[in-house]
Amino acid sequence: MRKLGKQEIEDIAVGAALLGTGGGGDPYIGKLMALQAIEEYGEITLLDPDEVPDDALIVPSAMMGAPTVMLEKAPSGEEAAAAFKNLESYLGQEIYATMPIEAGGLNSMLPLALAAKLGLPVVDVDGMGRAFPELQMVTFYLDGISATPMVIADEKGNTTLLSTINNVWTERIARAATIEMGGSSMIAIYPMTGKDIKKSGISNILKLEEEIGRAIRLAKEYNADPISEVLKKAKGFELFRGKVSDINRKTETGFARGVATFEGINEYKGETLEVRFQNEHLLAQTDQRLLCVTPDLIAVLDAETGLPITTEGIRYGARCVIIGMPCHPKWRTGKGIETVGPKYFGYDVEYVPVEELAKKGVTA
Amino acid sequence: MRKLGKQEIEDIAVGAALLGTGGGGDPYIGKLMALQAIEEYGEITLLDPDEVPDDALIVPSAMMGAPTVMLEKAPSGEEAAAAFKNLESYLGQEIYATMPIEAGGLNSMLPLALAAKLGLPVVDVDGMGRAFPELQMVTFYLDGISATPMVIADEKGNTTLLSTINNVWTERIARAATIEMGGSSMIAIYPMTGKDIKKSGISNILKLEEEIGRAIRLAKEYNADPISEVLKKAKGFELFRGKVSDINRKTETGFARGVATFEGINEYKGETLEVRFQNEHLLAQTDQRLLCVTPDLIAVLDAETGLPITTEGIRYGARCVIIGMPCHPKWRTGKGIETVGPKYFGYDVEYVPVEELAKKGVTA
Repeated sequence: MRKLGKQEIEDIAVGAALLGTGGGGDPYIGKLMALQAIEEYGEITLLDPDEVPDDALIVPSAMMGAPTVMLEKAPSGEEAAAAFKNLESYLGQEIYATMPIEAGGLNSMLPLALAAKLGLPVVDVDGMGRAFPELQMVTFYLDGISATPMVIADEKGNTTLLSTINNVWTERIARAATIEMGGSSMIAIYPMTGKDIKKSGISNILKLEEEIGRAIRLAKEYNADPISEVLKKAKGFELFRGKVSDINRKTETGFARGVATFEGINEYKGETLEVRFQNEHLLAQTDQRLLCVTPDLIAVLDAETGLPITTEGIRYGARCVIIGMPCHPKWRTGKGIETVGPKYFGYDVEYVPVEELAKKGVTA
Repeated sequence: MRKLGKQEIEDIAVGAALLGTGGGGDPYIGKLMALQAIEEYGEITLLDPDEVPDDALIVPSAMMGAPTVMLEKAPSGEEAAAAFKNLESYLGQEIYATMPIEAGGLNSMLPLALAAKLGLPVVDVDGMGRAFPELQMVTFYLDGISATPMVIADEKGNTTLLSTINNVWTERIARAATIEMGGSSMIAIYPMTGKDIKKSGISNILKLEEEIGRAIRLAKEYNADPISEVLKKAKGFELFRGKVSDINRKTETGFARGVATFEGINEYKGETLEVRFQNEHLLAQTDQRLLCVTPDLIAVLDAETGLPITTEGIRYGARCVIIGMPCHPKWRTGKGIETVGPKYFGYDVEYVPVEELAKKGVTA
């Protein structure tokens, strides 16, 4: 158990946005909300999963919807609290702690803000080790844990309590409700036991986020190269350096979908990189070769500061370094690849681990 | 209090389909479900609203969605029972009785089938005195009664419990969920007290349905004219006689929308009638004049048998009599017209009571 103060929040926000691989919400809003919550309610208690009793009720809190919309509809905190209250009343059990469902600038921070507000601890675990666009795309799903009962709440005061036959139906109905609610909503989902999160979650994700964020901060302070610091912490690979030459993004069926194009600079001059996304970056390829594909992580970093750029934040002309990082081993199983691999998103490529692709790159 | 047996069910089904003004679901399926439920569980108890205690919990049961889809997805009865169980558990109170929310071939019968299955009485009251396409279009809404908590259940086993800030949001979110569930769902909605239904409902709607159904049946038996019998019972007006020359129907945003065109026969020869609908018939007009408009009732009857034809059942070449009937006085108030009048549905005409329009027709 330890306490999270302002510096920790600042670092986690940066690392979370990086592991959010372009999605997971706007890091600036998320950070502000968490800092404000600390200001108002005091420091946040972070628990290691091992410190949670096996029978405790743990409920992740998150924002659902297209990041494009989230930017315009910052949550007030009341929706998330309402969702928790509603779920507690339905389950007839008190919620012991919350946790993030994914890594992401907003979705790693919202549970912190909610925890401060409700006086609950946060558990250092999530269900992705990155961000993904759909509700069933969590390691809990791979282990057969139900996403429901879940509660969807909007900023107007509407709430929806869903019980579904499987998590794909949860995603479908919750997405439809969220779109109708204006494109984003706050959700309380995957109510689990302490035992569940220890077995099926990805532990110490906030710790990793904090380390990455701190590495970027210290690199600036000591005039070191932030990119190489990030690559060390995240065990990643530099995939490409380039300038944004085109960004094609639209919000459809509740997602931000599109492709960002980069013209190579430095040793990548003459090459063109395309990064395809659905809320999150999912595929990075040049004309010649595949560089990284989901479920491995693709992050777009500012070439100078090393700070992560979301799909919403990509601007024409920006100089970026694109890096790839191996996903958690849980995603590299048969059901993992089926759930979040390239085929699921409609990309006609086979999944190859980023470290294999990186080797090929070297030998090409 | 009285018991409903097979003959009553047969008559109610016909009358309900007629007052369903083209919508409210397929009368054949509804009738079969109610008859089968009686076969299995025995006769159904029908209560007059005055027999219901003021503090009793009354919950209408209905099918939501486009009738086109309902035809292909007949409910099993399990969904409706699941929705009731879910709502009882949420409210922590036993449901005393059910009731129809609207008149309609399916939606007048489903509460009867559910009542038989659950051993509950049915109250002789509804919230429309006809059928309307949207959830807030009930007399309860005019009196400020909340549609939620409501439960939406599908045939796969998914359920959604909604709590909304107003009934227009109920309609929006429930419609989105219903579309995602495949276009139709079973709902338990507008949980009310006995006092509420007495004050805000339309009493003795099943009695009227039964009288209309019986009149049509007896007319056939005694070789009388079924149309004039119906007009007497429903205090209606003959608007037109014609052959269906065109039917344009599509399912969009969860509704069956379209227009049926009739070429006049007999004294209407040379005239063309258009009947516009959104699940229900909403507007009947010729080139020259408006004949009847929502919230007044427009029914299309088979010219020979007097049996009502739903918007789904209208076939090219069919010889029909189109009749108009005055709606319940509750709909003729300011808020009533605002909620279900022609402007709400996008028709650029003022509401004029059908009896006024019928007079004009005579003097024209």
